[in-house]
Amino acid sequence: MSTGDDKTATTIARAAKAAFEASQLIASSERVHALHELRDELVSAKAEILAANKRDLEAARQEVDAGCMSSSLLKRLDLNKGDKWDSMLQGVIDVANLPDPTGIVTYASELDDELELYRVSCPIGVLLVIFEARPEVVVNIATLAIKSGNAAILKGGKESNETARLLSKAIQSALSKTSIPSTYIQAIQTRAEVSALLELDQYIDLVIPRGSNSLVRSIQNNTRIPVMGHADGLCSVFLDESADLDKAVRIVLDSKTDYPAACNAAETLIVHEKVLLTVWPAVAEALLDADVQLLCDPPTISALQSLSSASGKLTSHVHQSTPDSYTTEHLSLTLSVITLPSLTDAIRFINAHSSHHTDCIVTENPAAASAFCRGVDSAGTFVNASTRFADGFRYGFGTEVGISTGRIHARGPVGLEGLVTYKYMLRSEKGHVVGEFGTGEGKKTYKHRGIEAKTVPFLE
Amino acid sequence: MSTGDDKTATTIARAAKAAFEASQLIASSERVHALHELRDELVSAKAEILAANKRDLEAARQEVDAGCMSSSLLKRLDLNKGDKWDSMLQGVIDVANLPDPTGIVTYASELDDELELYRVSCPIGVLLVIFEARPEVVVNIATLAIKSGNAAILKGGKESNETARLLSKAIQSALSKTSIPSTYIQAIQTRAEVSALLELDQYIDLVIPRGSNSLVRSIQNNTRIPVMGHADGLCSVFLDESADLDKAVRIVLDSKTDYPAACNAAETLIVHEKVLLTVWPAVAEALLDADVQLLCDPPTISALQSLSSASGKLTSHVHQSTPDSYTTEHLSLTLSVITLPSLTDAIRFINAHSSHHTDCIVTENPAAASAFCRGVDSAGTFVNASTRFADGFRYGFGTEVGISTGRIHARGPVGLEGLVTYKYMLRSEKGHVVGEFGTGEGKKTYKHRGIEAKTVPFLE
Repeated sequence: MSTGDDKTATTIARAAKAAFEASQLIASSERVHALHELRDELVSAKAEILAANKRDLEAARQEVDAGCMSSSLLKRLDLNKGDKWDSMLQGVIDVANLPDPTGIVTYASELDDELELYRVSCPIGVLLVIFEARPEVVVNIATLAIKSGNAAILKGGKESNETARLLSKAIQSALSKTSIPSTYIQAIQTRAEVSALLELDQYIDLVIPRGSNSLVRSIQNNTRIPVMGHADGLCSVFLDESADLDKAVRIVLDSKTDYPAACNAAETLIVHEKVLLTVWPAVAEALLDADVQLLCDPPTISALQSLSSASGKLTSHVHQSTPDSYTTEHLSLTLSVITLPSLTDAIRFINAHSSHHTDCIVTENPAAASAFCRGVDSAGTFVNASTRFADGFRYGFGTEVGISTGRIHARGPVGLEGLVTYKYMLRSEKGHVVGEFGTGEGKKTYKHRGIEAKTVPFLE
Repeated sequence: MSTGDDKTATTIARAAKAAFEASQLIASSERVHALHELRDELVSAKAEILAANKRDLEAARQEVDAGCMSSSLLKRLDLNKGDKWDSMLQGVIDVANLPDPTGIVTYASELDDELELYRVSCPIGVLLVIFEARPEVVVNIATLAIKSGNAAILKGGKESNETARLLSKAIQSALSKTSIPSTYIQAIQTRAEVSALLELDQYIDLVIPRGSNSLVRSIQNNTRIPVMGHADGLCSVFLDESADLDKAVRIVLDSKTDYPAACNAAETLIVHEKVLLTVWPAVAEALLDADVQLLCDPPTISALQSLSSASGKLTSHVHQSTPDSYTTEHLSLTLSVITLPSLTDAIRFINAHSSHHTDCIVTENPAAASAFCRGVDSAGTFVNASTRFADGFRYGFGTEVGISTGRIHARGPVGLEGLVTYKYMLRSEKGHVVGEFGTGEGKKTYKHRGIEAKTVPFLE
């Protein structure tokens, strides 16, 4: 990285911090105003933005033809596909209409007469968000940052540079029509800038990488700034000895095939040995009918020998698994299958192999459900429900930053709540001092009387 | 670091993770039971522990005599000083009696008929806690970890090795009388072990260093594991133009002199230029009477020329400040003083110079109080109250892990709540699948009906 990048990065980071600090004195209604302006800017710049997107798409198509880019990446670039453009606009308004996540009191106590303590939610500060191809993420993340009161520096994939540049321009124009500084949301283009920014922990408060495990780890290795990673999902479904056959078939099928490329799709199926010859063959048949490739251990292979209807697929779709099968995120119509002798073994296996994202038990036994939910150390522990439900929209958050694979600050699907922290505000009417409290004669003791308050009464 | 340390570290970290996972299936009442056993073990081993503490003290005294250790460090080592031993025992029981921080529902929603989502607090996993001299911290941290359901690996200062070894033995004995694995709490002795453990992000979930800024930064530089740092406090008091003189004197005096070595003591005083000749001289006089050294900018020095009563100290105790004065954590009877022309300048100055720990405004103007609390980006923003109130016990948390100088996950004084995260539990009665929901014909929509619940009904 050159000294030039360092300088630029410092200028960008400083401007972001200054914008954040200045914004703390601006009413939160102005942030909502900015989001409405943003929607209007996007509407008026639509033709221009889609033309830029076409240029990105053409350049990408050449890369795909030259074998330098995957065609799935190409698909994600297209901002004019289906209802993507309209959803992006709707998302801005939906987020604008959500309740303000800041200014909410989560703990309040009267420490003494006329000495009141409030813990109140507030923005984190400056976010550095690093994400891959999809250009609409620029607008999604900017929207979430503005709504939650955080300044943000955004780095998208280079494939969408032209589109992202115009989306950023629209964000700038929108901010310029409010009292929020335009450096509140800034876009950067190069990896060198990212590297330089990762050094600046005095200005940047949280790094949010959305991408592969290796992206997240490489960032964690290179910064003192806290990282909220959004990486792989290695989810599993466990068919307990009391699994209901119909539920097992429905859930495994949905978890695997509803959207195989998603991080909340199932990659591993664990079969309790007591249901090897009862539940498993029916589940396998449904999976084979859906064209799923099965990587099986010897017991689950043997148990399928009696399957006649799907026999044609037993050779083409059923293969012996290897130890690696159980640590692979297939992201395709492939499922690893293993037999285990007990619930306890299943919990241990999941804790050792899963990515602690979302795991499901299919069971009719409440004690097994309870043990599974307590024992499995994942962001989501599901009973008789598809792993695909692990999603901010489905959870009712309206929108999501992503699905955090860390367990500090925010875990699982992260909504606006994951972009706030809190501060303590203490107010005395009398000029309280600590020296008056204690155990000696004439000393006061703390009252710690709970206060019912949803907002801080002395904040204007 | 040798391969031997790597091996030992891996064994320790793996054992901690296994103990954590096993403990998730044990009732939380067993953790409370362990704390009562711990208290009993400490009572019976008192003589032995205090004898070991004497040996640590003697060794430390030789280090002090040889000029290799500060005498303040020596003081902190003494476990038999004042009511330290009894407070340590009482702390164990106090924490045992606090409400369980785990199993609490913080969000619950019915996504569909018979499809219920619960966000429920749970332990983080394996904590690596690194702290300095005071040996009783071994017991404090072990107590907090056990109560919150986290496994912990503890590394204290080498000065207290003998004492810490016996305290750890008591913890092991206590755990062995419960169904919690004894590797739930482990003590390590060497820095090489710490270095090796910082690599093991597959087993360790959070590092909690309590010490200097340089300790915290060095750890952040050397690990992918999230770090909850407890470092410097550079707190300030701002005398606004409407400051009440009596409150100003009381608050500045208490903030500076109640316990100057604490991280919540004030290090900087900011004087609004409009009160330079009214409030400031009285505050200065009280500080000089309390033997405080003042590092002043030219206007605050000039304003003191009229002080007659304290004139003797004007030469011995009042000195010209340098730019460094305002970024120094004095931790002694020294205070840096600066004049600024406005509230806005004071907020900017604090955001640029403070360590974002705790800052106070002395004012009779509600608008100024509100702007200060919103604009100052610190864990604590106080109105007319001493910075010394920033403390877990005073806030009503019963006890504290420390005062976090980070802003992610937990900020300011960290109680048991700072040692938990959450997971999502989703239960269906019917075997719900995502494919049934959507916008097409016959598709269901999400209900997102709030559920009033404090605990998860299907957990046993």
